[in-house]
Amino acid sequence: MSSKALDYENLNENVKKCQYAVRGELYLRASELQKEGKKIIFTNVGNPHALGQRPLTFPRQVIALCQAPFLLDDPNVGLIFPADAIARAKQFLGMTSGGLGAYSDSRGIPGVRKEVAEFIERRDGYPSDPELIFLTDGASKGVMQILNSIIRGPSDGILVPVPQYPLYSASIQLLGGSLVPYYLEETANWGLDINDLRQSVAQARYKGITVRAMVIINPGNPTGQCLSVANLKQIIQFCHQENLVLLGDEVYQQNIYQDERPFISARKVLLDMGLPLSKEVQLVSFHTVSKGYWGECGQRGGYFEMTNIPPKAVEEIYKVASISLSPNVPGQIFMGLMVNPPKPGDISYDQYVRESNGILESLRRRAHMMTDGFNSCRNVVCNFTEGAMYSFPQIRLPPRAIETANKLGKAPDVFYCLRLLEATGISTVPGSGFGQKEGVFHLRTTILPAEEDMPAIMESFKKFNDEFMEKYEDHKGYSRM
Amino acid sequence: MSSKALDYENLNENVKKCQYAVRGELYLRASELQKEGKKIIFTNVGNPHALGQRPLTFPRQVIALCQAPFLLDDPNVGLIFPADAIARAKQFLGMTSGGLGAYSDSRGIPGVRKEVAEFIERRDGYPSDPELIFLTDGASKGVMQILNSIIRGPSDGILVPVPQYPLYSASIQLLGGSLVPYYLEETANWGLDINDLRQSVAQARYKGITVRAMVIINPGNPTGQCLSVANLKQIIQFCHQENLVLLGDEVYQQNIYQDERPFISARKVLLDMGLPLSKEVQLVSFHTVSKGYWGECGQRGGYFEMTNIPPKAVEEIYKVASISLSPNVPGQIFMGLMVNPPKPGDISYDQYVRESNGILESLRRRAHMMTDGFNSCRNVVCNFTEGAMYSFPQIRLPPRAIETANKLGKAPDVFYCLRLLEATGISTVPGSGFGQKEGVFHLRTTILPAEEDMPAIMESFKKFNDEFMEKYEDHKGYSRM
Repeated sequence: MSSKALDYENLNENVKKCQYAVRGELYLRASELQKEGKKIIFTNVGNPHALGQRPLTFPRQVIALCQAPFLLDDPNVGLIFPADAIARAKQFLGMTSGGLGAYSDSRGIPGVRKEVAEFIERRDGYPSDPELIFLTDGASKGVMQILNSIIRGPSDGILVPVPQYPLYSASIQLLGGSLVPYYLEETANWGLDINDLRQSVAQARYKGITVRAMVIINPGNPTGQCLSVANLKQIIQFCHQENLVLLGDEVYQQNIYQDERPFISARKVLLDMGLPLSKEVQLVSFHTVSKGYWGECGQRGGYFEMTNIPPKAVEEIYKVASISLSPNVPGQIFMGLMVNPPKPGDISYDQYVRESNGILESLRRRAHMMTDGFNSCRNVVCNFTEGAMYSFPQIRLPPRAIETANKLGKAPDVFYCLRLLEATGISTVPGSGFGQKEGVFHLRTTILPAEEDMPAIMESFKKFNDEFMEKYEDHKGYSRM
Repeated sequence: MSSKALDYENLNENVKKCQYAVRGELYLRASELQKEGKKIIFTNVGNPHALGQRPLTFPRQVIALCQAPFLLDDPNVGLIFPADAIARAKQFLGMTSGGLGAYSDSRGIPGVRKEVAEFIERRDGYPSDPELIFLTDGASKGVMQILNSIIRGPSDGILVPVPQYPLYSASIQLLGGSLVPYYLEETANWGLDINDLRQSVAQARYKGITVRAMVIINPGNPTGQCLSVANLKQIIQFCHQENLVLLGDEVYQQNIYQDERPFISARKVLLDMGLPLSKEVQLVSFHTVSKGYWGECGQRGGYFEMTNIPPKAVEEIYKVASISLSPNVPGQIFMGLMVNPPKPGDISYDQYVRESNGILESLRRRAHMMTDGFNSCRNVVCNFTEGAMYSFPQIRLPPRAIETANKLGKAPDVFYCLRLLEATGISTVPGSGFGQKEGVFHLRTTILPAEEDMPAIMESFKKFNDEFMEKYEDHKGYSRM
């Protein structure tokens, strides 16, 4: 019998080649260990509810009522739902034709897209057009759809920061395009050097690649930095000069843990720059209900907003969206709720603010606990997590650890992370999954374990790390400086 | 300024070329007319709740409780939720780690996949392995993922029935493969002729195409036929001989409107055939919560089950699924509920059965009303809708109507459907969107308008059609036989 179409050797090569380390070897090993009864702390993926974060009450009340509209006629409904949740559920149901069980327009419910546009206008100070906002099943699906529109073949290149969130490398590989890396500078707090960017583009062109788009992740994943206005301006000017679409991954815009560099959207900076750039630079911005302090990952709600994309191209993007009929409608409602939460004076306002601040303030404390914890470890250095939900410490592996890893056929950071997992149950992602400079090693953890568990986790990490270093260090003094 | 990456002329050609008529020209025109205030009857897409079908109560109660788990501790919860819904919600929440707000495993929640496997075993009489079942955001996403694994380039061909559901043509185009059509025979009640299939494969091979997979849609969309066991056996044998993966789109398996040909899954027929076929033919079967009598389209829940796909290929499919993190979790819960609904003796059982039967029996009556209605019209012939939720009448257009359409630069069936839309508000899809034989014209409607509205809709259709025919017919006798 000859081999079959769905045998491994006959699969689409792009499927086989793509890698997604966030759920890669470490995650699979952690899942195995969990099955065997070991307690695992999953810090591999930004999944707050899985680590004990409670959902915000108000949005869950509204969605429960939208799912069970017959409750709205129940005389007892007021006993367990507040009046503003009831009113909001009625408002959302009025925006749909057929409730949550009906496909919506493939771009999403018009009323929700209007709420998103109003949120963007409040945030940036410039009006936003709901017709240029598409709701999606989470931000990842939106990113994939836009990349699919852009990438025509292997000679189309997309500029991606290194380290990067591997959604980008995996999607570009899957779509058969070329990833063009630009490096973030760890010693400059993961800032971006425009000269390095220019060099990356020049190198790619030399290889025959047409660079067509540039990805920024702000706040950064896995690196946690917030881009400055000056940096964003440089990036936008660069995209204008080089004729690149700017893809702004801004899913962590609510997750800011310092006050010096608040989040500023790429769109606001672009529109502030005025003509001709404000009318010429093409920008697609992504957002989601999975991150922020909501952390509603499992609901898969998101949107993208297009700036300076001509109507004929928007139509094509709409057409492709329509093949999957519509994003999930409950996720759309979550998006509407997130951009238009309870207001001062609403019954649920105080509770909403209390819950939100509780989460955000705790995340801020955890960002400090984690960074400080890493920096107290032997051969570990870590920039402060300014935003997003990750720490990305550099692990300075002694040569003997690297040799041992090589002998075992493992990348050195994979070897370190596997040992960490076996010793402590902490499931991280090796830095090589995000890309790093040659000979430099990192790991990524989320800052999401419960605050009360954090001291024990960091202690357990330190104990493992310092013993690991002790074991593999050359005691003649290497890397103890 | 040179043209930009997201300008129309620079987009990925596969994006530009793909077509999805279900939400194409007719739908866009209908949406415009609706905005202008015209009453539109949307029969273009199988979207039951949008046409007034009410959601089943029990699943909505369970999902509402899962979304608002704090209600489970509310002393008043028993006043508005039955005890079995409360128990089921607790059971589902126990299957997740972190509730509905946490990403699940990328294949879906293990407990739900187990429920799906048990459903398949009850249905087919053969055990099913949960590890080979992946939950998806609706069936369409599953189909796209499997096609993406199979299609390596333009010389990979996928056999697709004509007429077909345009998800297939659109996805194959988007993924850069080749659609290899095989015709369903209208005069044989949309049956499949194995000789025609052989010829299609031979022709494709002659053009240098490697045919790798075959799609069947059973019950048929848009054609409504149920495949016989004899036909399914022939298909499976053919796939074995020709080394094709069989893709079984069985999303309408609950929607059966006659008793002579019940739904039988491709998997059951395959396993009934015994060795060697039962171990050699590769099969992927698709199902969803959008269809059946649930019609929960907006929730985007579905699954695919793989048979005879080797573990290394399953791993690759898992890896690609993991890039999008996880299917939406509420949709997964719906899938679990659909395959494991209330049982005799449960508090909610009677209501569940009453609601389910009410919908299914009404659909059966509507299938008759619609087919009979079409067959009473001048120059219209229509096979009975045995299953699924569509009628696909043939419209015998007079030559003068065809000439008029040609002059206006419209396909003749598009011309007819546009006139129908303007005259009556009935929004259908022209048969050319599904594929049809040269010179033969159809349209597709759903059978979903509310039963009480159906007589008026069919009367309005008949009035339009018969006047249209009167106007365009050659009164010397053409096509009145």
